Amino acid sequence: MPEFLELLPPPEASKRWQEHITVQVKAEEVDSIRAIGRVTYEAVTAPHPLPSFARSTVDGYAVWAEDTYGASEALPAYLHVAGEVPMGKAPGFALSKGRCAFIHTGGMLPEGANAVVMVEHTQTVSQDEVEILRAAAPGENMLKPGEDVAEGQEVIPAGTRLRPAEIGGLMALGLTRVKVARKPRVGIISSGDEVVPPEGEIAPGQVRDVNAYTLSALVQELGGEPVLYGIIPDRAEPMQATAGKALEECDLVVITAGSSASARDLTAEVINTLGAPGVLVHGVDVRPGKPTILAVCNGKPVIGLPGNPVSALVIASIFVPPVVEALLGLRRSAPAPSVLARLTLNLASQAGREDWIPVRLLSEPEGYRAEPVFGKSNLIFTLARADGMIRIPADATGLHAGQMVEVWLA
Amino acid sequence: MPEFLELLPPPEASKRWQEHITVQVKAEEVDSIRAIGRVTYEAVTAPHPLPSFARSTVDGYAVWAEDTYGASEALPAYLHVAGEVPMGKAPGFALSKGRCAFIHTGGMLPEGANAVVMVEHTQTVSQDEVEILRAAAPGENMLKPGEDVAEGQEVIPAGTRLRPAEIGGLMALGLTRVKVARKPRVGIISSGDEVVPPEGEIAPGQVRDVNAYTLSALVQELGGEPVLYGIIPDRAEPMQATAGKALEECDLVVITAGSSASARDLTAEVINTLGAPGVLVHGVDVRPGKPTILAVCNGKPVIGLPGNPVSALVIASIFVPPVVEALLGLRRSAPAPSVLARLTLNLASQAGREDWIPVRLLSEPEGYRAEPVFGKSNLIFTLARADGMIRIPADATGLHAGQMVEVWLA
Repeated sequence: MPEFLELLPPPEASKRWQEHITVQVKAEEVDSIRAIGRVTYEAVTAPHPLPSFARSTVDGYAVWAEDTYGASEALPAYLHVAGEVPMGKAPGFALSKGRCAFIHTGGMLPEGANAVVMVEHTQTVSQDEVEILRAAAPGENMLKPGEDVAEGQEVIPAGTRLRPAEIGGLMALGLTRVKVARKPRVGIISSGDEVVPPEGEIAPGQVRDVNAYTLSALVQELGGEPVLYGIIPDRAEPMQATAGKALEECDLVVITAGSSASARDLTAEVINTLGAPGVLVHGVDVRPGKPTILAVCNGKPVIGLPGNPVSALVIASIFVPPVVEALLGLRRSAPAPSVLARLTLNLASQAGREDWIPVRLLSEPEGYRAEPVFGKSNLIFTLARADGMIRIPADATGLHAGQMVEVWLA
Repeated sequence: MPEFLELLPPPEASKRWQEHITVQVKAEEVDSIRAIGRVTYEAVTAPHPLPSFARSTVDGYAVWAEDTYGASEALPAYLHVAGEVPMGKAPGFALSKGRCAFIHTGGMLPEGANAVVMVEHTQTVSQDEVEILRAAAPGENMLKPGEDVAEGQEVIPAGTRLRPAEIGGLMALGLTRVKVARKPRVGIISSGDEVVPPEGEIAPGQVRDVNAYTLSALVQELGGEPVLYGIIPDRAEPMQATAGKALEECDLVVITAGSSASARDLTAEVINTLGAPGVLVHGVDVRPGKPTILAVCNGKPVIGLPGNPVSALVIASIFVPPVVEALLGLRRSAPAPSVLARLTLNLASQAGREDWIPVRLLSEPEGYRAEPVFGKSNLIFTLARADGMIRIPADATGLHAGQMVEVWLA
């Protein structure tokens, strides 16, 4: 398919591409303490109820509620103090009618108790007698066993990205290991006869590889595992060999082309040799990033990115996250972080084309202002100077100064 | 200072506390490829200009602009093709008047060239002659050396959290190592006679440690390094020994108290023995989390958190991030991720107290709806079921159904 016969809008391009991908989520078991940000492979169920015993939620007296009915400041109920519940142990005694037990927050209710009266609503009479100044209803100021979760209850659905609260929940249930999706392996291939590794000096005409590292960082942020295949010359044989190996070993392959048109065509040709159906989209109606290739080879997604670092990163930020999330089995994406800001100046855009503009956020008392960062599209520091990007949709011919825009944070 | 003599609103509490902290940012050098999310310790400057040579931004012909002046489709300029610029190498020839060179995107302009004409605006006449159909202005379709950054220019300010774009920028300049703030060490101490490690069975009256792990996960997300000091019994001597050690070894110490009032008082007493000024805030007017302790000992921040897991995590999410960011030397916080959503029901709140309510987001065609997740405050799965929190400020007495609220994503 020659370049740009048909330019697709990004949403359509993404749809056509994703339809052909065979998503296979793989599992591994990891220590829960190291599982932050990982995605559950299967639903987690509670091996036992939580709490596992009746617990007080206040400092006070565990009582049999009926013993307190009608109690008031004017007419207290008098209860015999059977003892104090030690923290972290079963009480070692039960309550019979007319008796109560001193209990701390988190303490275990003795058998026979079904409520707790806060210490503020009691008055000590003697070492073994207390006045109850307020009636307690059954279940008051306590947690029943299983009130947080019942035994066997699903507590974390499959496909959930684990946050601090879920890690805590796993620990509360004694689940120190958890089955998560294996990190999707993303093969990254740089190409271009002008591209050299970042270490060392560069000769005239050479540039250092940037894309392998921006993409690798992006993949890490998404919860994938980048696998770097180095820099391949702009020739079919080495490119084919490396891309074939990457496709074999990885779940997604990203190739950044050399910057010339012929190098980009080479990428498409090579991808078409890797497996059916091959290139599905060649050219996307977006700036920057028009020369994007979306392909599927034997069910696995392959992306050909423009060589210029800004286009490569912007396009990767549009197309890579949904695929990595699918490969993680993520059920609900977290909303992409964004803020609303007032645009500082007019921006023109060609109708029919989606534009992404880097902006810097200026924090002001009335809210954020978004100031476009201009720069030719191959300047990586244009993006480094920006806090995020704004999107001018395909059906707009521009945005005007003072308009509220959504800034997608990079 | 006994508990709750004075309840401070969270912003005042935070201010009083932070004023006493002596922030010391420490440095270390790391591989740039592993520096994603780290914070620059010092400004990064460019060791050489970028690009380091004049580069074409299109496929076409490198020309001396004056040779093309007046050229049009009707009256083309005829130029002699001196050669083709190889990718990744210096051209090996210079242009004299009347001559041009075939060049690819990213190729190095030969000496004598000061513009590039796109191939679409040319017509091949013979192997060594080309028609130029449009005039080029000097500098057109090319990047001058230093057009992205000049030699010695500051490219990344100190205190910047490195994102994929900055990692790429470092690589473009050959900076494979970068000086970043050392990850602030956050000592985490759990206490409570009822608290046991998460592995293994629990006996009646015991609960597993949750806070060490939720806090550890939070610290990791913030870019700090959690250091776990285990579970300490509710007695002054062991608590004092462990807290002293943690204060010595860490930049911030977080102690979660046993759940009883006496255990919380113990935490305050111990903190006061660690160094001056000691406890600055004891009790914050917020729910959940009233029994919060904010202290500074010998310049280092110490937090005493309520033992119940929800309060501990909510309070840590309010007070820990600004301190970790200060210890990282972060100059500009990224806006905290949030979305706007329509509240599904009325929520009452006590005037004067700040309330944090966990909510679940429901995505609908008109936007998000925020549905409060109710549960007693000691139930960790209440937070696991929530997508974020909404804040009812101290001066409000509640929120009403249908109102737009900001949901801070957990």
